[in-house]
Amino acid sequence: MKATIITIGDEILIGQILDTNSRYISRSLNAHGIVVAERTSIGDNRTQIVATLDRALSQSEVIIITGGLGPTKDDITKHTLCQYFGSTLRYDEVEAEHIRSMLAARGIAFNELNRGQALVPECCTVLHNAHGTAPGMWFEREGKVVVSLPGVPFEMQHLIDEEVMPRLQERFALREIVHRTMITFGIAESILAEKISAWEEALPDHLHLAYLPAPNVVRLRLSAYEVEGAKVREEIERQFESLHSIIPDNIAGFEGASVEELVHNTLRQRGATLAVAESCTGGAIASKFTAQAGASAYFLCGVVSYSNEAKRDVLNVPMSDIEHHGAVSEQVAIAMARGVKGVSGADFAISTTGIAGPTGGSAEKPVGTVWIGIATPKNSFAVCRNCGTDRSQIISRATAYAISMLYDELKKP
Amino acid sequence: MKATIITIGDEILIGQILDTNSRYISRSLNAHGIVVAERTSIGDNRTQIVATLDRALSQSEVIIITGGLGPTKDDITKHTLCQYFGSTLRYDEVEAEHIRSMLAARGIAFNELNRGQALVPECCTVLHNAHGTAPGMWFEREGKVVVSLPGVPFEMQHLIDEEVMPRLQERFALREIVHRTMITFGIAESILAEKISAWEEALPDHLHLAYLPAPNVVRLRLSAYEVEGAKVREEIERQFESLHSIIPDNIAGFEGASVEELVHNTLRQRGATLAVAESCTGGAIASKFTAQAGASAYFLCGVVSYSNEAKRDVLNVPMSDIEHHGAVSEQVAIAMARGVKGVSGADFAISTTGIAGPTGGSAEKPVGTVWIGIATPKNSFAVCRNCGTDRSQIISRATAYAISMLYDELKKP
Repeated sequence: MKATIITIGDEILIGQILDTNSRYISRSLNAHGIVVAERTSIGDNRTQIVATLDRALSQSEVIIITGGLGPTKDDITKHTLCQYFGSTLRYDEVEAEHIRSMLAARGIAFNELNRGQALVPECCTVLHNAHGTAPGMWFEREGKVVVSLPGVPFEMQHLIDEEVMPRLQERFALREIVHRTMITFGIAESILAEKISAWEEALPDHLHLAYLPAPNVVRLRLSAYEVEGAKVREEIERQFESLHSIIPDNIAGFEGASVEELVHNTLRQRGATLAVAESCTGGAIASKFTAQAGASAYFLCGVVSYSNEAKRDVLNVPMSDIEHHGAVSEQVAIAMARGVKGVSGADFAISTTGIAGPTGGSAEKPVGTVWIGIATPKNSFAVCRNCGTDRSQIISRATAYAISMLYDELKKP
Repeated sequence: MKATIITIGDEILIGQILDTNSRYISRSLNAHGIVVAERTSIGDNRTQIVATLDRALSQSEVIIITGGLGPTKDDITKHTLCQYFGSTLRYDEVEAEHIRSMLAARGIAFNELNRGQALVPECCTVLHNAHGTAPGMWFEREGKVVVSLPGVPFEMQHLIDEEVMPRLQERFALREIVHRTMITFGIAESILAEKISAWEEALPDHLHLAYLPAPNVVRLRLSAYEVEGAKVREEIERQFESLHSIIPDNIAGFEGASVEELVHNTLRQRGATLAVAESCTGGAIASKFTAQAGASAYFLCGVVSYSNEAKRDVLNVPMSDIEHHGAVSEQVAIAMARGVKGVSGADFAISTTGIAGPTGGSAEKPVGTVWIGIATPKNSFAVCRNCGTDRSQIISRATAYAISMLYDELKKP
């Protein structure tokens, strides 16, 4: 069973917004055993929508479209689909009442444009959008399904979870897609590939191996498409187990996502607590942890000490350390980690102090220089990393290094 | 001049990673006057790559491909392109030496897989990748250009900026694309559209209007494609000026991006400083500011006070306020904002305290309840917002509300 995802909107093509909808839908289709063959983004353009739909219907059984359902003139998806399926628009009283009451809650009068949102093609099944004013639509043609959803991420997500997936499961006999990812660290991609080449060669045809490199980490993903899930999951487990004897010191664990999830899980299991003191990463490390449900069990406090005074007053970093060694130094990184650990009472602490640029660099400490400090119940230390030359890259690399350094500490016996 | 962007990688189709490369390339092409007609993501699959290339070449003059250039077996883009263009691979000594020295700096030996990375199709122009081991490739066929770049975002970005765009500008006579976005706030999309409908109707054909709604904000974008930039920029300015008389109280400003940029610019212009105290937003507000170059001019300190003790010890929130009113309350939000303002000496402060879920909600304070506090040189106050039901949505909405509340304050005379 194959799917094509089509996201519609000029704002995607000009790069004004990031297309997060495609990822959400991809994950959901995968989790339900539907293979995403292609994802395409096009503009609010009738000719292009029709051509893309024609192509999608020739290659996939399921087509999910998002975007272009707003009340304003620039949104044309509904009218285009209505015409494509040879239908006409009807006024849906139930949807109209829902739109009216949603607007009333915000003190907004129902006008002609809102009335237009309650128009739906005769031939479609309406997917009720409980969280917004644009209804979803479900079309069928020659055994294939075309679904149109609003582009607002939260509304789209609810419709996918509550309306689209249950109907697809009912409509089709779906098999399973299995992905499992092993995290390796401390070994370069090319060396890793060389070491495990015999193992890789011996993989059966239905297991697909992918290498996903990131700073300090290479992920190995085994995937199997449209299989009997339980059996293949066991098989993948056995394949990964046999890697243990080949690269015993380079396996960090398994995951669907990220090192911060591993730290999150480890801290929760141990009942240990964490605090972070950030300068150049500016809250990015705290965000990574607090984005995860259940973080309040271990995350006590984060401090973004951008100014030297904040380092001194909030974290008790000695001003003499800053004056003698500079704010970006081993001494200050250690003092920040110890400081936030002390003030919060946490078991573990991370700190970062560096030069995120574009200005502030020197010959001795160029842009990208970051000191990362770690304090544990046993000791505290800091290491220096060059995190690149671009501000956003420096922030994300320093964040990744800091979290993986903490993970290394947590894994020590 | 039209372009198609093709991103290759199973990790995109299964939703394991977010495709940020497409956005970067879209922005860059737009900035150089090239219209992105379509963006497509496909798997590491030879048949699909060939079919997509055929289609792209039939509709666009410029095709930018990213991904699939790693040293491992799952990456097949280079071999597929070599075959597509009827070429053979040659060993490039310069690239080999570069790869060897990059690996040596990390203490890694050059092996057979790295040797493979130095192989390039005879028929292409090599685009030197100073920041990575996979060279970029520039192909030409019948006046059209196909560029293949590595998928690692930072490497791809440098190649786009330093190699691809200068060559495209040299190769083609490019016109300009103009986008200008006005931010309106405090008016619902449908009411706004009704109010400005006569203005919208009177827009000339070459100016395209788009509505981009977000919490509390609707952006209006005027776009013109492949025009004479200076003249059209003036014309767009005049069009937006005439909106001032229609919606005088709803215009927040102009921008390419976000409200945090407006706050960033305002604080820098005024020489005023900012501190933030976050509970449920967990560092997301601090990150939004510190991600911007020059934030250190005004951003003094952020505190992520997840635990009650951190609220008390770092921010001086009275424990009696927490006990009497709860951590999620007007009193605590105000005390947090005042606390971080006091401890940092900042002129302005923002605070958030809320229930991000999925647990911790009650009938009185359901998941999604967020108190947002603001402290200014003149006063301090807090408002309560329901920010939804999903953790990531609650964090991002509370962040957006908090920053736009501060912006409202900054705009007051």
